Amino acid sequence: MSSKYVLGISMGDPAGIGPEVTVKALADPTMLDRCHPIVVGDSGVLQGVIDNIGLDLSIRRIADIAEAVFEPGILNVHDLANVDMARFRIGEVSAMSGQAGFDYVVKVIALAMQGAVDATVTGPINKEAMHLAGHKFGGHTEIYAAYTDSKRYAMLLVEENLRVIHVSTHVSLREACDLVKKERILDAIELMDGACKRIGIAAPHIGVAGLNPHSSDNGLFGREEQEEIIPAITEARKRGHDVDGPVPSDTLFPKAIGGVYDGVVAMYHDQGHIPFKVVGFNWDRNSQTMKSVRGVNITLGLPIIRTSVDHGTAMEIAGRNIASADAMHLAIDYAVKLCRSDEREG
Amino acid sequence: MSSKYVLGISMGDPAGIGPEVTVKALADPTMLDRCHPIVVGDSGVLQGVIDNIGLDLSIRRIADIAEAVFEPGILNVHDLANVDMARFRIGEVSAMSGQAGFDYVVKVIALAMQGAVDATVTGPINKEAMHLAGHKFGGHTEIYAAYTDSKRYAMLLVEENLRVIHVSTHVSLREACDLVKKERILDAIELMDGACKRIGIAAPHIGVAGLNPHSSDNGLFGREEQEEIIPAITEARKRGHDVDGPVPSDTLFPKAIGGVYDGVVAMYHDQGHIPFKVVGFNWDRNSQTMKSVRGVNITLGLPIIRTSVDHGTAMEIAGRNIASADAMHLAIDYAVKLCRSDEREG
Repeated sequence: MSSKYVLGISMGDPAGIGPEVTVKALADPTMLDRCHPIVVGDSGVLQGVIDNIGLDLSIRRIADIAEAVFEPGILNVHDLANVDMARFRIGEVSAMSGQAGFDYVVKVIALAMQGAVDATVTGPINKEAMHLAGHKFGGHTEIYAAYTDSKRYAMLLVEENLRVIHVSTHVSLREACDLVKKERILDAIELMDGACKRIGIAAPHIGVAGLNPHSSDNGLFGREEQEEIIPAITEARKRGHDVDGPVPSDTLFPKAIGGVYDGVVAMYHDQGHIPFKVVGFNWDRNSQTMKSVRGVNITLGLPIIRTSVDHGTAMEIAGRNIASADAMHLAIDYAVKLCRSDEREG
Repeated sequence: MSSKYVLGISMGDPAGIGPEVTVKALADPTMLDRCHPIVVGDSGVLQGVIDNIGLDLSIRRIADIAEAVFEPGILNVHDLANVDMARFRIGEVSAMSGQAGFDYVVKVIALAMQGAVDATVTGPINKEAMHLAGHKFGGHTEIYAAYTDSKRYAMLLVEENLRVIHVSTHVSLREACDLVKKERILDAIELMDGACKRIGIAAPHIGVAGLNPHSSDNGLFGREEQEEIIPAITEARKRGHDVDGPVPSDTLFPKAIGGVYDGVVAMYHDQGHIPFKVVGFNWDRNSQTMKSVRGVNITLGLPIIRTSVDHGTAMEIAGRNIASADAMHLAIDYAVKLCRSDEREG
């Protein structure tokens, strides 16, 4: 008998660092105290990673979760066997790897929708490779929305004090301006409020960013603050949420990092991603790589739980055994946290 | 005989923290080893600050730079006597203070244009107050451009490793998208290259941001990268500049902070200001104020030197003697650095 949550982890694009960070995180001896992880991926690729790192891990190929054995030294792999190792090149963007990475995501979603896993965690996919394979999604968030038939969803970024949700993500900046609408902002505020409560913040204080510089200085540059953002904030307050804003984004983020806000609503992708990565990513001059990648990406508004590393496939360092598994650890921890909260709430 | 550069320092909006940070910086005993500073402001307000802090400084009111005496304990003030102390309220946005702050800027520009001072340094003005007084400028940068008749200018933000120039500043985000044009980007690259060289970087490596998320992922979201930014970079390289880009902005800034780029070209105000303030500003939970404000703002492309603190008037803490003068110190240091460079260049 076990009370551990079962997590389905898609290993990401086979040619990127996803398999490496997955294997590294799951090799952690404390992992089985935290959850029961299943990797959805390709056993040939994973074996290659294990050999390359030199880990004492045996792959157990399973076709059903019931076949999994949760013991130290065993890596349970739901093997889609979709990588032709003869053609496979680590670090290379290809349609084959793009298709494979896409398949793991679709499979892990299906497992969660069936209730076979309690939550899903995703390794990084490569958008270019996925598009080469013919799947024209903006990213994981959009795949999850489509395959779970979700209409009201959003991407939440988390690290230490900073929790950011976006009113729009993978659209041009001009289109992002068009998407700054009262209803979307209100949805984002409510999703953020709900997310904060799920991770244990009883009375979330939420900061909402302006769209324009200086939040338009009272309408001097741009009208979105007056016409959309302020009405959304007013309505959110009527509904009982504790909301501040619109706060100029260059003031909002230093304050959020300083602990003023439990959650932040960003109006567009880079507005939230720039401060998030400035805080969570460190460039290492010696190895010429990003290190200490601590960001987690959570999709809110889905019928299932999904957390993810927030970094990319980092093809340029794949296979070199230098990728950090910090973000994968955190993504797993957040998935468990969300499982617990959902269980409490019934 | 003295080889010190004479700096004209406008004290900023009288009701904000400008007078306080100016007095604090100039009270530093090492200041006279670095430069010969003149404050352009109101002696009544400055005396109030000196009394409030309890500093051993005497104001010497001068009408001409020749009357200045550069000795410890003396604060040389070009006194515009434009604040009615009976009506003056510290921390209050008013047309009177807005007019006064504006007058100091115009005066310090005139002193520099006449050659009476070698460089100018500005304390923070309050845009709302300035607009109440009828001066509809976006900020210092625009005032300087107008009063020095400059057409090709840009705002440079500096702190430690991070130096950022903006293709546009105080316009709506939609208008900022319209201003992402090859010629403007090329101007910004060349101004940044020149600025790096003036502060001692012989062969600047410059990173240029994309406008859209992921730099549009090769045109998937937005066309500005393909149509404007890449052609500007190509042309800049032809002209011999060492330029990288377009780099997705959420990758560019962590790399720049890690020392990869000597200078960064940002496409719009918040793209540069968010990382700049996340790095340079710290929110202090105890005092509920921003602390350690280390940012300096330099206007490039003018016939005169202008550096500035990058923080605002912080009306809410004015008069409480808790404002940090760090940014004013740095702004003064950069003004001196630029004077030296211009002298070397002849």
